[in-house]
Amino acid sequence: MASASKSGVSTIGVDLGGSHVTAILADEDGTTSHRSSYDITDLSFGAVVKLMSSAIHDVSAKAASVSAVGIGSPGNIDLRNGMVRYSPNFHWVNVPLGDELRSVFDMPIFIGNDARCATLGEHTYGSGRGVKNFVLLTLGTGVGGGIVAEGTLLLGNSAAAGEFGHHQIRATDGFICGCGKIGCFEAHASGTGLLRHALACAPSFPRSTLLGDKPYEVGSKTIRKAAEAGDSHALAAWTRFIDDLALGLANIIAFMNPDVIALGGGVSSAGDFMLNAVRPKVDELTTMAPKGAAKIVIASLGNDAGAIGAAVMARRGGMATSLP
Amino acid sequence: MASASKSGVSTIGVDLGGSHVTAILADEDGTTSHRSSYDITDLSFGAVVKLMSSAIHDVSAKAASVSAVGIGSPGNIDLRNGMVRYSPNFHWVNVPLGDELRSVFDMPIFIGNDARCATLGEHTYGSGRGVKNFVLLTLGTGVGGGIVAEGTLLLGNSAAAGEFGHHQIRATDGFICGCGKIGCFEAHASGTGLLRHALACAPSFPRSTLLGDKPYEVGSKTIRKAAEAGDSHALAAWTRFIDDLALGLANIIAFMNPDVIALGGGVSSAGDFMLNAVRPKVDELTTMAPKGAAKIVIASLGNDAGAIGAAVMARRGGMATSLP
Repeated sequence: MASASKSGVSTIGVDLGGSHVTAILADEDGTTSHRSSYDITDLSFGAVVKLMSSAIHDVSAKAASVSAVGIGSPGNIDLRNGMVRYSPNFHWVNVPLGDELRSVFDMPIFIGNDARCATLGEHTYGSGRGVKNFVLLTLGTGVGGGIVAEGTLLLGNSAAAGEFGHHQIRATDGFICGCGKIGCFEAHASGTGLLRHALACAPSFPRSTLLGDKPYEVGSKTIRKAAEAGDSHALAAWTRFIDDLALGLANIIAFMNPDVIALGGGVSSAGDFMLNAVRPKVDELTTMAPKGAAKIVIASLGNDAGAIGAAVMARRGGMATSLP
Repeated sequence: MASASKSGVSTIGVDLGGSHVTAILADEDGTTSHRSSYDITDLSFGAVVKLMSSAIHDVSAKAASVSAVGIGSPGNIDLRNGMVRYSPNFHWVNVPLGDELRSVFDMPIFIGNDARCATLGEHTYGSGRGVKNFVLLTLGTGVGGGIVAEGTLLLGNSAAAGEFGHHQIRATDGFICGCGKIGCFEAHASGTGLLRHALACAPSFPRSTLLGDKPYEVGSKTIRKAAEAGDSHALAAWTRFIDDLALGLANIIAFMNPDVIALGGGVSSAGDFMLNAVRPKVDELTTMAPKGAAKIVIASLGNDAGAIGAAVMARRGGMATSLP
């Protein structure tokens, strides 16, 4: 890392989430000072770019000097120009996010996948610090991920390495995923997945009031809290969710044999209630690596992981120094 | 790589397969000269070690000078001492392969997983030469694999990175795997998997003679050749096999986003008949990386990949220079 911040030079990290865009100001050691956040629910690409620009302006105004901006966006990103090739959650195809921002800001703009940014953040300052083989899994509306192997953040051919959410675990009996496939890990082990499990097992609990009048609007936190409180319908959904999460985690272990897997994203606020349920099931499904070789923990940077990692990316001058 | 072979120093590579143990003599540029092979079908660990020692002796006697021996063994290997922690195919648990050989040979002995050795071989001299992000998938009796990411062979925490064969693709409706889990990729996409598909769809073909009098002894090549010739039972099995192979390949792409995936092992002798069937299905199932980003090819070193890679490992002084 450059020693720029010793002279007060910051970078800006931006996290583009499903409902909000958030910019933070970060110095060289990862300390964040200012932040600005806007609600982008149901907005078009153009409107999102405007609010993202506002958020960047807001925190930039607080800084002595800003050297670069990093943005973590959902979807597959062309790292060379910051184009979002495909984001199933925003329904974006080939949107020129990088070019739009470069027309507004006269400083380097780097764009990467949000979960890979979060992986960079957690590996630099959080749960993955000093870990040689590290995997971050973000369990939110969707499931994202990132891989550090032998100390290097993996990008792959098209910056799509770590898309654990779109590996199929139940191709014949699974839920339909936003990407169009059946039984993707994301459709089963995200917050949305937990709700789907609750909907799927609802017929077995005819007297349950868990899902109320607007079942499709029930949050995963409501279901999880009800499970913790012993509600039988919520517990059934939670058990199916944990089974599928464990299956995907065991698949990650089969592929990567990591030292640590950190669980981030909104659903990871379940903490020990999730870890205590999922760890023994992962051990059961781990057959080639020694059981317990992968330590499963909760990510430590919380909601800021993506923005902090985006600021790290900005300071590094991009996710990769060279790409094919 | 050391320049030892310029003075005629060779290394020996050994491939421990399901039915044969084969030793080869290799020079620095990967050229193999002598080989020795023994049938080890149904033999105990002690008997296997004796025949492996004989094979090493045989080729060693032909060399001016041998600097080290590398051995590719199925299963999970403790790279520090060459103990085979677990091999489901041999039913070995914690067998001291390294120590046994070190008591016989007065030279450095390095042991690694057979598929990771083959990956090293293909990446050094074969289908993965110069490829930054490379995956080898060996389709034989089982399914093995290895990953080169950002130019580095991945080992993971316990040298078990790349165990694609034991990721679950059909946890509820799959075949039982040798490792005890249901629906592992290996149980569906190996040569044995092809036979299982043929057995599973046999009831739909009551007049089929494909599996004859001893259905459990029919080789995958027989089924594949019958499919190529248009036999309807064989084609049904082949289609299910290709579907599951494509599913696993798409999962590998979701995780690793490789530049090239090479298919090795006995089943890969199907060549274009397999590639032409599997490539469009993989494209269908590739949603996050650009379609076609991963080039799917047949591995180029054939049956020698494992032994050649083991010789490379011996020359490198092990799979990794340091391990935790």
